[in-house]
Amino acid sequence: MDGTVRDKLASFVAERDWERFHTPENLAKSIAIESGELLECFQWGDAADDARVRDELADVLTYCMLLADRLGVDPNQLILDKLAKTREKYPVEKARGRSTKYDAL
Amino acid sequence: MDGTVRDKLASFVAERDWERFHTPENLAKSIAIESGELLECFQWGDAADDARVRDELADVLTYCMLLADRLGVDPNQLILDKLAKTREKYPVEKARGRSTKYDAL
Amino acid sequence: MDGTVRDKLASFVAERDWERFHTPENLAKSIAIESGELLECFQWGDAADDARVRDELADVLTYCMLLADRLGVDPNQLILDKLAKTREKYPVEKARGRSTKYDAL
Amino acid sequence: MDGTVRDKLASFVAERDWERFHTPENLAKSIAIESGELLECFQWGDAADDARVRDELADVLTYCMLLADRLGVDPNQLILDKLAKTREKYPVEKARGRSTKYDAL
Repeated sequence: MDGTVRDKLASFVAERDWERFHTPENLAKSIAIESGELLECFQWGDAADDARVRDELADVLTYCMLLADRLGVDPNQLILDKLAKTREKYPVEKARGRSTKYDAL
Repeated sequence: MDGTVRDKLASFVAERDWERFHTPENLAKSIAIESGELLECFQWGDAADDARVRDELADVLTYCMLLADRLGVDPNQLILDKLAKTREKYPVEKARGRSTKYDAL
Repeated sequence: MDGTVRDKLASFVAERDWERFHTPENLAKSIAIESGELLECFQWGDAADDARVRDELADVLTYCMLLADRLGVDPNQLILDKLAKTREKYPVEKARGRSTKYDAL
Repeated sequence: MDGTVRDKLASFVAERDWERFHTPENLAKSIAIESGELLECFQWGDAADDARVRDELADVLTYCMLLADRLGVDPNQLILDKLAKTREKYPVEKARGRSTKYDAL
């Protein structure tokens, strides 16, 4: 997330006095709720409406950004830190072309 | 997401030949699965372990970024476009200090 | 759920003094968490391990039963009441062979 | 689930020729989607509307019953089998009054 997005989201929330609702727990629930709506685009198969998928993905992302901000972490750094760990769990030579979970590789 | 994060994720996936698994549907399922793990941090209350929350949020974000990339959309722009719509649904004067859903405001 | 199942679940919870954790909100979170684990069986496709699917489905069902009990409702009656409403929203002649949502039928 | 509920759900589905949509994978997605709607009742706190909670719980339960039926398992037996395993993971003397996960007890 770049700083502009972060600032615009923060203003949006502050103007509505919504910080009080945005506890980490409520944001985690919100992410799960919106993920369910995103999944609904694919409930009966893979032929989803693109505009709707984008809309629901935007909602998941928005709550993720709000939670990152609340935790005081940078979302980009969070992703990169986790990627470093995942690289170790899934070495190229073992994981190539396989969807097997790391503990069964 | 800045370009560096996008590129690093894309390399990680390409090196493992995992694009084949990353259909929009599978990514939407993955986002929902990881959201459940994030929510598990708060299963019995709001006293979550911060390191674990960051770790699970990173997983949700990673799959969101992969889906955005797959759809060919910029995650920052996606958030900003949605924010513009949400501003209209939740005018400050009506929504201030209330968690009521827009259709009941 | 038959009465035996209900009673055995209630004893299990009471023996551990866990009623205090089983607020409707915590049970709703638990259902979402376990649903994510069930979905994980199908993360990369439809070839799931049957024993694992049964195990995760059992977890979702268990929390559903606990929530029904907490709300003082009979799960069988709940399903039948909802089925009556769904029958009206999806008349056979309109819904036959189609997965379209009722508001788009 | 008693036999009546099972039979009524099966007729409802058969009349609409919906068996084709009810693959285990699609039912698992449906359970996750409906769990998200149930969780939405508690998005901003524990003061949920009871009628709505019952309605959403009914949807989760319905898809659970359809999946159990599809797998050819009895939901009551599924719950009891899992309860036996959970009893072993959470002995009364260790788990009493604690929400700690079994692997940290």
